[in-house]
Amino acid sequence: MEKFKVKAYGTEAADAPLGQMDIHRREAQEKDVEIDILFCGVCHSDLHVARSDWGPSSYPVVPGHEIVGRVTKVGGGVTKFKVGDHVAVGCMVDSCRVCESCKKDLEQYCIPGFTGTYGAPDKHLGGHTFGGYSEKVVVDEHFVLKMPDNLDLAAAAPLLCAGITTWSPLRHWNAGKGSKVAVVGLGGLGHMAIKLAKGLGADVTLFSRSPNKEKDALDLGANQVVISTDEQQMESVRGKFDLIIDTVPYVHDLNPYVSTLGVNGTLVVVGYLGPLEPMLNTVPMIMGRKSVAGSVIGGIAETQEMLDFCGKHNIVSEIEKINIQDINKAYERMLKSDVRYRFVIDMNSLKK
Amino acid sequence: MEKFKVKAYGTEAADAPLGQMDIHRREAQEKDVEIDILFCGVCHSDLHVARSDWGPSSYPVVPGHEIVGRVTKVGGGVTKFKVGDHVAVGCMVDSCRVCESCKKDLEQYCIPGFTGTYGAPDKHLGGHTFGGYSEKVVVDEHFVLKMPDNLDLAAAAPLLCAGITTWSPLRHWNAGKGSKVAVVGLGGLGHMAIKLAKGLGADVTLFSRSPNKEKDALDLGANQVVISTDEQQMESVRGKFDLIIDTVPYVHDLNPYVSTLGVNGTLVVVGYLGPLEPMLNTVPMIMGRKSVAGSVIGGIAETQEMLDFCGKHNIVSEIEKINIQDINKAYERMLKSDVRYRFVIDMNSLKK
Ligand SMILES: [Zn+2]
Ligand SMILES: [Zn+2]
Ligand SMILES: [Zn+2]
Ligand SMILES: [Zn+2]
Repeated sequence: MEKFKVKAYGTEAADAPLGQMDIHRREAQEKDVEIDILFCGVCHSDLHVARSDWGPSSYPVVPGHEIVGRVTKVGGGVTKFKVGDHVAVGCMVDSCRVCESCKKDLEQYCIPGFTGTYGAPDKHLGGHTFGGYSEKVVVDEHFVLKMPDNLDLAAAAPLLCAGITTWSPLRHWNAGKGSKVAVVGLGGLGHMAIKLAKGLGADVTLFSRSPNKEKDALDLGANQVVISTDEQQMESVRGKFDLIIDTVPYVHDLNPYVSTLGVNGTLVVVGYLGPLEPMLNTVPMIMGRKSVAGSVIGGIAETQEMLDFCGKHNIVSEIEKINIQDINKAYERMLKSDVRYRFVIDMNSLKK
Repeated sequence: MEKFKVKAYGTEAADAPLGQMDIHRREAQEKDVEIDILFCGVCHSDLHVARSDWGPSSYPVVPGHEIVGRVTKVGGGVTKFKVGDHVAVGCMVDSCRVCESCKKDLEQYCIPGFTGTYGAPDKHLGGHTFGGYSEKVVVDEHFVLKMPDNLDLAAAAPLLCAGITTWSPLRHWNAGKGSKVAVVGLGGLGHMAIKLAKGLGADVTLFSRSPNKEKDALDLGANQVVISTDEQQMESVRGKFDLIIDTVPYVHDLNPYVSTLGVNGTLVVVGYLGPLEPMLNTVPMIMGRKSVAGSVIGGIAETQEMLDFCGKHNIVSEIEKINIQDINKAYERMLKSDVRYRFVIDMNSLKK
């Protein structure tokens, strides 16, 4: 298959810093869209895969799955996009297209597994896929999203992972007018959860361990902040919520949050992968028909729905723009939660 | 308040056997139905409350919440029942009637708490409520169910707890034609779950640790039995089920069952109250939008719906009939799971 060379930023080993390198992209095929990458959000996953935190990664790792860009070429069979369009690519660049999940627009739950934007087997060129820390990307049009005209392209980039990861459970569990939603944790995911839940018309509460997040949360649209270490405050919201979106990325006790769910309420874990310690107690779950669930990103149609919704309600992420040369420093700051609330790389810096 | 004496069977202490005693029932008030008890099923809860297994009980304990009988008197305001009707009473005899849950026919999730058929504060006579191991019971008509004409009254008694406890999650999570339901554990609850799921048109699988339950399960209507200790058999149903009803009454590992849920699948715990050990792993939950939930009995309208459904489909419990004088022996056998699948007391024996 024809291919061409592009500049990228990645790492050759778990303990090496990211640096500039060349990678290949395939020539746009029949259904492909070639995209000049303008901005790429920086997700926690980028760092974890670069450093093999989730098991050994295939190197080089070129991270990045919050991609916004402009179409520079389309294949002959492409119907949804034309050269010059502003488009986006999220966490998936392919899936099997034929399984039960794919048939229901749930590509994120593709039974044989979706093709991740980076680090997944590349069906076209062999090797593995490379993400958005690069000049260009070539993606089948099914996995390309249209960007609404009115959104700031840099600030919209995090919608592609942080946005859809919280949007999908909000929609699946019917958050909207009259529903009471709580968000646990105020980071990249949490701040999007507040904005999106608010946009959907829900009454939104932030659970936070630190009182100093209160002003930010209210500014983002939360109706209320509950300090999770304050027993009295926790007691005051006992049995209150219909839906809790838990964005905390490390192991923590879910039981105090389950107590704040009302009858038929659901707590959805979107941030932490692993065993739930301490143990979950079934008593309040049984006595209130409560659920604890998980959710990962969202389907392609659902991602487009979210982008359109964000366009209509003028919702974007709070970001700090960086140059690609600052990515290693950004990773260090991200580990300390020292970012409000998402780094976004101005990919123009890679051209320098 | 006027009251009258009836014979009952109960215990004065956690370590004392059950024996005959006298208790009082209130004279039927405006909305009350006085019922001559014909049969009473024996539930695991009966034993646990009699023995203070779930914290100290108020003595004397008169257990029994799978009650079937005949109306002997009605208050002036009773509209749904008349003398001579065959009726039933389950796990609840009252609730607040005005909370969010009660207004939605979810009395089992009454916010201030429903009034249990035994061991709950008695709003009328003071003290606490006494269950169905007695000659008569007096209950507000809202908490009295109509028995379908065609069902064997003794075999129908366990529908009032074991039946509704499995019916409610089957209905809430939409089990029916085309859905794949699994049941964990084949006891009082499990055997009803199989019959009811089958009646609803679902494809039903039993998970069991012992291969010798296979014939019984198939006879009860299961399409398949999977031995949960056989890794190959477990692997063969990976990702298969829409709904799992877990009736196991002791702590056990849910993770192998979660793996057998499909995308959007739910595992509902109905049998075990306490911390989930070993810990639940969020990875398969997140990667397949799976839920772990709890559920307790069912609402009154839903219980009537179940009884009517059982009448129409001729579904009853598999029972072993005993005299009240054999209740202590029955408890011992129940602890060893030596019953197929529910003891039901012929309350005529109390009159001897
Ligand atoms: Zn991400
Ligand atoms: Zn698929
Ligand atoms: Zn029971
Ligand atoms: Zn109530």
